[in-house]
Amino acid sequence: MTGGASSPLRPSWRHVGADWKLARLDGRRSTPVEWMPATVPGAVQLDWARARGIPDPAFGQNVRLLENLEDDHWLYRTRVPDARRGPGEQLVFSCEGVDYACEVRLAGRPVLSHEGLFTPFEIDLSDCAPGAELEVLILPAPKLAGAPPDRTQASHACKPAVSYGWDWHPRLIPLGLWAAAGFIVRPAAHVGRVDFAYALSEDLSSAVVSVAVEAAGHRWRLLDAEGAPVAGSASAGEPLRNPRLWWTHDHGEPYRYTLEVTGAGGDTYRRPVGLRRVRLVMHEGAWKQPAGFPVTRSNPPVTVELNGRVIFAKGSNWVNADIFPAAITAETLRPLLRLARDANFNLLRCWGGAVVNPEAFFDQCDELGLLVWQEFPLACNRYPDTPEYLRVLDQESRSIIRRLRQHPCLGIWGGGNELFNAWSGMTDQSLPVRLLDRNCYDLDPGTPFLPTAPIGGMGHGDYRFRDEKGREVFEIYRSAGNTAYSEFGCPGPSPVAYLETFIPAAELWPPRPGTSWQTHHAFGAWEADPSTWLCNGTLEHYFGAARDLETLVERGTWLQCAGYQGIFEEARRQKPVCAMALNWCYNEPWPSAAGNCIINWPARPKPAYHAVRLACRPVLASARFAKFQWRPGEAFSAEIWILNDCLDPLPAGEVEVTLLAGGARTRLLLWAFPPVAGGRNLAGPSAHAVLPSVAEGSFELVLGVSPRTDWSSSYRLSLLPGGR
Amino acid sequence: MTGGASSPLRPSWRHVGADWKLARLDGRRSTPVEWMPATVPGAVQLDWARARGIPDPAFGQNVRLLENLEDDHWLYRTRVPDARRGPGEQLVFSCEGVDYACEVRLAGRPVLSHEGLFTPFEIDLSDCAPGAELEVLILPAPKLAGAPPDRTQASHACKPAVSYGWDWHPRLIPLGLWAAAGFIVRPAAHVGRVDFAYALSEDLSSAVVSVAVEAAGHRWRLLDAEGAPVAGSASAGEPLRNPRLWWTHDHGEPYRYTLEVTGAGGDTYRRPVGLRRVRLVMHEGAWKQPAGFPVTRSNPPVTVELNGRVIFAKGSNWVNADIFPAAITAETLRPLLRLARDANFNLLRCWGGAVVNPEAFFDQCDELGLLVWQEFPLACNRYPDTPEYLRVLDQESRSIIRRLRQHPCLGIWGGGNELFNAWSGMTDQSLPVRLLDRNCYDLDPGTPFLPTAPIGGMGHGDYRFRDEKGREVFEIYRSAGNTAYSEFGCPGPSPVAYLETFIPAAELWPPRPGTSWQTHHAFGAWEADPSTWLCNGTLEHYFGAARDLETLVERGTWLQCAGYQGIFEEARRQKPVCAMALNWCYNEPWPSAAGNCIINWPARPKPAYHAVRLACRPVLASARFAKFQWRPGEAFSAEIWILNDCLDPLPAGEVEVTLLAGGARTRLLLWAFPPVAGGRNLAGPSAHAVLPSVAEGSFELVLGVSPRTDWSSSYRLSLLPGGR
Repeated sequence: MTGGASSPLRPSWRHVGADWKLARLDGRRSTPVEWMPATVPGAVQLDWARARGIPDPAFGQNVRLLENLEDDHWLYRTRVPDARRGPGEQLVFSCEGVDYACEVRLAGRPVLSHEGLFTPFEIDLSDCAPGAELEVLILPAPKLAGAPPDRTQASHACKPAVSYGWDWHPRLIPLGLWAAAGFIVRPAAHVGRVDFAYALSEDLSSAVVSVAVEAAGHRWRLLDAEGAPVAGSASAGEPLRNPRLWWTHDHGEPYRYTLEVTGAGGDTYRRPVGLRRVRLVMHEGAWKQPAGFPVTRSNPPVTVELNGRVIFAKGSNWVNADIFPAAITAETLRPLLRLARDANFNLLRCWGGAVVNPEAFFDQCDELGLLVWQEFPLACNRYPDTPEYLRVLDQESRSIIRRLRQHPCLGIWGGGNELFNAWSGMTDQSLPVRLLDRNCYDLDPGTPFLPTAPIGGMGHGDYRFRDEKGREVFEIYRSAGNTAYSEFGCPGPSPVAYLETFIPAAELWPPRPGTSWQTHHAFGAWEADPSTWLCNGTLEHYFGAARDLETLVERGTWLQCAGYQGIFEEARRQKPVCAMALNWCYNEPWPSAAGNCIINWPARPKPAYHAVRLACRPVLASARFAKFQWRPGEAFSAEIWILNDCLDPLPAGEVEVTLLAGGARTRLLLWAFPPVAGGRNLAGPSAHAVLPSVAEGSFELVLGVSPRTDWSSSYRLSLLPGGR
Repeated sequence: MTGGASSPLRPSWRHVGADWKLARLDGRRSTPVEWMPATVPGAVQLDWARARGIPDPAFGQNVRLLENLEDDHWLYRTRVPDARRGPGEQLVFSCEGVDYACEVRLAGRPVLSHEGLFTPFEIDLSDCAPGAELEVLILPAPKLAGAPPDRTQASHACKPAVSYGWDWHPRLIPLGLWAAAGFIVRPAAHVGRVDFAYALSEDLSSAVVSVAVEAAGHRWRLLDAEGAPVAGSASAGEPLRNPRLWWTHDHGEPYRYTLEVTGAGGDTYRRPVGLRRVRLVMHEGAWKQPAGFPVTRSNPPVTVELNGRVIFAKGSNWVNADIFPAAITAETLRPLLRLARDANFNLLRCWGGAVVNPEAFFDQCDELGLLVWQEFPLACNRYPDTPEYLRVLDQESRSIIRRLRQHPCLGIWGGGNELFNAWSGMTDQSLPVRLLDRNCYDLDPGTPFLPTAPIGGMGHGDYRFRDEKGREVFEIYRSAGNTAYSEFGCPGPSPVAYLETFIPAAELWPPRPGTSWQTHHAFGAWEADPSTWLCNGTLEHYFGAARDLETLVERGTWLQCAGYQGIFEEARRQKPVCAMALNWCYNEPWPSAAGNCIINWPARPKPAYHAVRLACRPVLASARFAKFQWRPGEAFSAEIWILNDCLDPLPAGEVEVTLLAGGARTRLLLWAFPPVAGGRNLAGPSAHAVLPSVAEGSFELVLGVSPRTDWSSSYRLSLLPGGR
């Protein structure tokens, strides 16, 4: 059902409380011996930890205490309630999805088998005697036979692969009733699934709204923000003239209408809806490439056109907001998503390794004006062409599409993460990818579909400030020329006060492999580079050894801030060839000692968040320079730009370029820039300076803009004798 | 229906003769004034030409006499026959498809509207009075309003675009009953559509055959080549052990079983069927590219794997075998397809601008062991996302897939030609392409689907021996590195004796623009180069002005032969990165004065055919050299290779490299090559020589192989003082 049984939007439905208990079984047919209280939605690991008094798994290396639960069976049990029912009312057991597979038993008899987190099911209990036992037997975590204990174990299932272990996620595979599961009393003649759809005219001047409802004799109305009806079943098929469109917050208002459906029995359903058109279009000049024979194809389009206007997509990669998906709620999401909007982001890529978020995520993105690129739960694996896998993927993807297509924020469907690269080994011919394209075409043809990311022209990585060849982010991205940077990372340590909350005091200094630092991904995290994510070698390269934690964190934070500032601004300079900049990653599912995220779990911005926020302002003055660390007396230069993502023209102004170094303030340049065309950047002159001969550790380049001082920028760079 | 009403495979069906007549109308509701006899299958232009005594349109510039027929309505009329029917028999009007849209009227009343060449329809006439008029009103050729008079007029229709004019096809848009259309008496309880399908086990050791039949109480059997039953409805679901697989002729036997279906009423249906598995797989080493960050995707796979073995695809681009598709019959196809097999081809790309061939084409490819890459009828246009176009494309593509998926030769589906290039302007997001992928996934998921050609990594072009920068084919392809050369052309004039059959004697010499030479595409044919396809500038560059037709043709033929030999062999040298070499084009639809084809219409091999045939031998000695024309006294060198597409190892042998120049025979090299691994090329030493100081016009490099003299090769190159 759309909106889910847990939705508060149908006032005539009554949720009847269920007391759940849980038992750990050593086999499918074992008799439960010991029961513990269960929280639903939840996870068997959380109930187990509570029952056994296991300390906070987020602290130190406690996560290991929850190992070895993934291969057991777990039995949830409750009783069918003695619910008072009025005439024409029914009692159902409703479950929004199971992590990951289960058998449902009623009074001891199996009544249903289910596989998948994202497909809800219901069992009508109207004829069932109150007090009967209702059990949900959770099967062990799916694991591909013979696979090593990593993500490849998830390569034949629709279970998000991340919990099998990632470079920023511990191995901990949640199981259980992760979504709402309980009893509902409601009119038998209720409003079931509601499908809202619309066709915008090519010029966007009118929309024909259609609403499909599982209910006899229903009526529907579309109300504007003032509550006035603008369309409805009484005038179905008539176009809505000059509809208010839904925009991302940076280019307009995320306007929403309200859809109201009333069933014949008086049952009602209301939800906000929005009208938008999202296309992926070729960037300016794209058709000129490739040239010459033999000619191959032009790069596929990744430039976002929203409601007929090309916008530059700025944002981040969204991962599980918690190790346990049941903990991802409207309340935990709200601060994260507000921070995303405040960071000047307009698009979030919901990465395929993670769980598909609950409704609250999309409701809030609708409201906040954030576009979502939603990937299906495939990542970095070779998902097979077998009928068994395709059957579950078909079911799960249809459920996901039917639910999310209702949201104006849902702007791009993605087949999954990095499927067409060596480490996955899938191709355009892989049937799972073709199935997903087929289902998106059948169920939501108006929304673009990307088979995976990266597709041709897009780039993923690097994930370090400085690579093993000594190339810094400034060089790496300047020479790249991709159509979209849909993943790029720059790691940094977490603030000291945060580290102190989950790293035992005795381990805090110095950070060492094999301690809680490693458990929380500061060492040996990413297979391609054993120094990740603390990257202490890089820190020592620039600064030498640190003598205390505060100094180490300050240095690592500086690199992360400077790196992300540099990459976002460089990606924007490459517009229109480049159309998208999404850093890896936005958030993390648990405490991170060091990593690429800009928000620590659960919603604590790192200093890099603010650097990114400034680099993503709709308009700013920006400097392009060659490197991070400079020598005293060295000739410094920087190109000065106005980066402009506003679609309206900008007035003329001035940029004063100042160097703060060696205690002196030197004005390098005064650039009186002309009016700037809407959506266009403007390249200005270069500023030059000879750096002072005394190294002070750092210098600052300040770009002061007048009259719009809010467009000003500054860059703090390293000035050390040892600089290379 | 599968196999079509005209199929001879159901002996219980009786075709009842129909006399058709035709009238040209000046409007949809006009009254016919003048009738002419009509031939069905046929085209209104052919009937008109016969009735009016218009001379052979293939001669001279006569094709112009058939202009201005495309915008009229045409009315076919016949009468419902007084057919003797036994008990339980029915009378139907059966039409295999219409070029392009029609209204069918019975006794003056419209009974059916139809659009599309490839979808058959039937009308049950069992209750219709004999003698009633049955009319088919053919609508004018579809033309996009406002489009120029070229292929863009066809960009909203499923009519093959080629007839709107191409660089090798005159503008002449056929209309009419192009496929079988007539009356059939058959059992009402007949065997309708038969769908043969099978699932091969991963190791190819067994197959589960399934047959879906539109008939009550039917039985089916699968018979081997000796007539022995190996599977059948009596044992449905049981695997067929060790099935004989269908192979291309160069790698095995195109083995076919016979499917026999018997209806409850005794109606029978028989057809050959075959079992094969075709995949497109990544080439060796493909996953290593791209390397470094930001990383984009690896190239999509285009390497053909047939029954578990990687094969190098050699072949050509197949275009309309006649301007009038009704003329493409089993008889006209047979010599063309035998020549394709004899050319050592194993794959034909049926280009999307052309008509989808009739059953006979696929039957013969099944029999001859030729794989077919079939594109849907989209080419070089921006086909729209409109519901009207998508509806017809959905209908037509489903009909095409349902018919052709029955053929083992059908190895690759293609969305259309060059859709993702600037001149088309479509992208991966275009709904027509997504619809075709969807339909192929739904109806034939076991066969690879390419959205278009070229996809990333593949190359199309050049179509000349020497480009405007002076690069020759030897340089162009040596530096290319594509995964497949799915189109490349090298033009040449037709033989003099052939030219004399369609160019008026007075125009034969000298060839001039504005004459029949231009009508037959020797001048101003391809928009990118006004010298096409005679390329007289190139001929004069190498040889100076020719003094007679024979000399001109000899020179152009030499370039075409040397060019195609060079490109095919270079593409093969680039294995395994390159997996496919298909020249543009194989055949042509009418007499060509000059062009890229290697077979003149209707089935006359040009000299280049034999050069290609030799270059495509499974095994040959091959020389790689830098250019075509050399100076006396210049230092010549060539790398010597063994090119091997045989999947079995080759024994050791010797290559003797000899230079024939200036009347002397010089042995340059004797290479004793070791055994060669199956499917692998072997690079050998380079041969060096100083060319003689007296220019004789040409010299020859001979690679004599022993003991396998059939692997020997030779290269004739130019030796002129004026050479550059």
